[in-house]
Amino acid sequence: MNRHIAVYPGSFDPITYGHLDIIKRSLEVFDELIIAVARNSEKRSLFSIQERLDLVAEVIGDDARVSLDTFDGLLVDYVLNRGSRIIIRGLRAVSDFEYEFQLAQTNRAVHKEVETLFMMTSVSYGYLSSSIVKEIASMGGPVDTFVPPEVRIALENKFRADKGD
Amino acid sequence: MNRHIAVYPGSFDPITYGHLDIIKRSLEVFDELIIAVARNSEKRSLFSIQERLDLVAEVIGDDARVSLDTFDGLLVDYVLNRGSRIIIRGLRAVSDFEYEFQLAQTNRAVHKEVETLFMMTSVSYGYLSSSIVKEIASMGGPVDTFVPPEVRIALENKFRADKGD
Amino acid sequence: MNRHIAVYPGSFDPITYGHLDIIKRSLEVFDELIIAVARNSEKRSLFSIQERLDLVAEVIGDDARVSLDTFDGLLVDYVLNRGSRIIIRGLRAVSDFEYEFQLAQTNRAVHKEVETLFMMTSVSYGYLSSSIVKEIASMGGPVDTFVPPEVRIALENKFRADKGD
Amino acid sequence: MNRHIAVYPGSFDPITYGHLDIIKRSLEVFDELIIAVARNSEKRSLFSIQERLDLVAEVIGDDARVSLDTFDGLLVDYVLNRGSRIIIRGLRAVSDFEYEFQLAQTNRAVHKEVETLFMMTSVSYGYLSSSIVKEIASMGGPVDTFVPPEVRIALENKFRADKGD
Amino acid sequence: MNRHIAVYPGSFDPITYGHLDIIKRSLEVFDELIIAVARNSEKRSLFSIQERLDLVAEVIGDDARVSLDTFDGLLVDYVLNRGSRIIIRGLRAVSDFEYEFQLAQTNRAVHKEVETLFMMTSVSYGYLSSSIVKEIASMGGPVDTFVPPEVRIALENKFRADKGD
Amino acid sequence: MNRHIAVYPGSFDPITYGHLDIIKRSLEVFDELIIAVARNSEKRSLFSIQERLDLVAEVIGDDARVSLDTFDGLLVDYVLNRGSRIIIRGLRAVSDFEYEFQLAQTNRAVHKEVETLFMMTSVSYGYLSSSIVKEIASMGGPVDTFVPPEVRIALENKFRADKGD
Repeated sequence: MNRHIAVYPGSFDPITYGHLDIIKRSLEVFDELIIAVARNSEKRSLFSIQERLDLVAEVIGDDARVSLDTFDGLLVDYVLNRGSRIIIRGLRAVSDFEYEFQLAQTNRAVHKEVETLFMMTSVSYGYLSSSIVKEIASMGGPVDTFVPPEVRIALENKFRADKGD
Repeated sequence: MNRHIAVYPGSFDPITYGHLDIIKRSLEVFDELIIAVARNSEKRSLFSIQERLDLVAEVIGDDARVSLDTFDGLLVDYVLNRGSRIIIRGLRAVSDFEYEFQLAQTNRAVHKEVETLFMMTSVSYGYLSSSIVKEIASMGGPVDTFVPPEVRIALENKFRADKGD
Repeated sequence: MNRHIAVYPGSFDPITYGHLDIIKRSLEVFDELIIAVARNSEKRSLFSIQERLDLVAEVIGDDARVSLDTFDGLLVDYVLNRGSRIIIRGLRAVSDFEYEFQLAQTNRAVHKEVETLFMMTSVSYGYLSSSIVKEIASMGGPVDTFVPPEVRIALENKFRADKGD
Repeated sequence: MNRHIAVYPGSFDPITYGHLDIIKRSLEVFDELIIAVARNSEKRSLFSIQERLDLVAEVIGDDARVSLDTFDGLLVDYVLNRGSRIIIRGLRAVSDFEYEFQLAQTNRAVHKEVETLFMMTSVSYGYLSSSIVKEIASMGGPVDTFVPPEVRIALENKFRADKGD
Repeated sequence: MNRHIAVYPGSFDPITYGHLDIIKRSLEVFDELIIAVARNSEKRSLFSIQERLDLVAEVIGDDARVSLDTFDGLLVDYVLNRGSRIIIRGLRAVSDFEYEFQLAQTNRAVHKEVETLFMMTSVSYGYLSSSIVKEIASMGGPVDTFVPPEVRIALENKFRADKGD
Repeated sequence: MNRHIAVYPGSFDPITYGHLDIIKRSLEVFDELIIAVARNSEKRSLFSIQERLDLVAEVIGDDARVSLDTFDGLLVDYVLNRGSRIIIRGLRAVSDFEYEFQLAQTNRAVHKEVETLFMMTSVSYGYLSSSIVKEIASMGGPVDTFVPPEVRIALENKFRADKGD
């Protein structure tokens, strides 16, 4: 069990500058980071699991310290199976806090040896969420201050496709 | 700069089972932990800086991975001076969250390379604070579910002394 | 660009005394008010866009300072197109606050020159929402303390119709 | 109108140790307790109204002070019809608080004579909800610290059935 | 141990319409109510313990179901000594919630058999506190919508006296 | 009564970039802005009322649309006396929200014709407060990202003076 590998789970539907900020800062604290994209949120997601993985891969680029994976089922089981016991989560606001608190307490009730560590998102991304980005993109609004260029293009394609162009 | 040393700062006036929970869980994540007792809160504290340090030392016992220290001035300066760049904080409730958020953002504005990581306190200690413990002890109430025996005795002595016995 | 025209956007599904309170107070502050009913919420709305507009019109009556409109797409684009740059929103509770905060920050990221101004709802309407009104009406409960008579009748008709009478 | 009968309403989909804690503590305060299972949440519920009632009955066992019922329509109407005027609700967290506040204020606006009394859930169940229990069970995770054995078995059967076994 | 006696503790410095609302509604639920004025807050209080008691007595008038008392030390001890095991508290807002949650959990840790029941304050008094009333009165502002006439006069006398008239 | 004059009240102890952001944005919405520095907070303030006024004046510079004033007593009385009926306040976080909500409701209870309008602080200043700035400056930390140069120098002089240099 390596204490210096952390797991950063999420839907990444799609990855935003807010996620990138947490990833970058996690790599300052831990030796390795596993970005774990949740399969089970697929039904409600805009991008397929493969599209979400591809966008994360493009945006992260080559970094030997980062590995990319998908998971379903209980997150704590996944974390232990990967030889880690640390989950990283970003906290933006009070509503986040309550949900994350409930999740972290439940995870501890299931597997006490898995620890969730929280980082406050950088102020510049404190209001940012994948949902808001998708909402703006769906109305044709500009999203370049929220997501990297690759993601912006993917959003534009997705919503153009939806309109049958 | 060792990434595996974390600093757990606080007033520890006095140390409670809530603090001990965070200390124990931090040691599962980091190789070394520096418990840093804040000097500047001295004026408003019940126990002197020396008393607070002594209680922490008694309660922690011998553990090569833990070192005990005091600090004043800017916490981020202290953390860097000690060769660390990780601050550990416990989060109990929403009011904690806002204060800690403000603190973490300000610390990052001063020294961007210092990261604050948060742990949700265990449910059993979610409502626990040094202030509440002192308030109960000051009225002669039982505090043994909140603090270790050494601290309970120190509290009893402190409040007995205050009443001139 | 007239600084004294404000836009009050919402779903108004249906308009309540809470909305009327904000409208009345906005007219004490601004010369003109555009009530902008959101088209995009139509799918999930109880009343059609036309029904919602008609109810607002009936309830507001003739007032040269108020104009009524619909919008879809990005609110900030709409506001600028209408020659305004002020959005008015009511704040009821903490959950409102976080959502509105996120919305206001995102709007500013898209068009910095549009400003969102918030009013605290009057205490009497602090707990009131269109959703709660619809829920009570759907169970046959009394809604006359929450909405004007025209809206109460529309709600009764809507739910009677739903039951196939 | 007996002041010593209280109603504890909810979806109980399914009943958890958190509900049992509130039930037990309510019986220390009131002479009789009516557990009222909401019919209207049926569409979105995992267990049918009959299954939910059966699980509550099994878990509560024989207790002359407790009666079990279902309701639909306005809760305040139901409470008055049952000869009670006291609603008991558990409060876990801030998000609970705002929703419950809105509900209690609305109920009072409809029938002023019905009073809602809140209990803070015990710390051990502060993070617990039927939704989280269902989510964990759906992924095959252990739920025995959250629900009584009867409920655990029902959850296992439900999710096994869902998978076509 | 009579289950139908409740204790309503507080500083009552001074009593407001918000307190009166809770008192009146408590008497709809419980047979007897003990209003318990906290002695320990005396140092920081505007009115002396005797003045606070006198104002409560004047405002409540003769009511066989209400008794008036003072307490210091642990509230839970006091409640048990008075043969009650029910504490009544009003909840106004989220900040109240967190403090009251902490208090209720601590009280239960000390004496598990004492239960705290919460009522949401009526919307009209949701923003009202003794501190705000004192602040307004100290600046010569009108307080008649917040406190009964007896209390308004006492406030005026207190602040006139403070200015040396 | 001119509807286009707004009052921005506060302690300004000292003025920060957060205040400047609100001032600048208020001038986009209102024709004139009165910056009203509160006298009554003087006892607890670091800077005297004159120093606080001087710093605001220096930082704002010459702007015909802005006037600078002090006030004590009830804010709503002051606002009406100045021929305005609009108060501007910045909202940073949930804790702000509750306090401001209470204040705005109380002000409306005293003078219904005075309206408080809230702006969400820009994300970059969301965590910023005069208190935090003073705390950092008092420990010799850098404050140039939080306050204009004039204020930074004033803070340095103040804390140097305090140390007897």
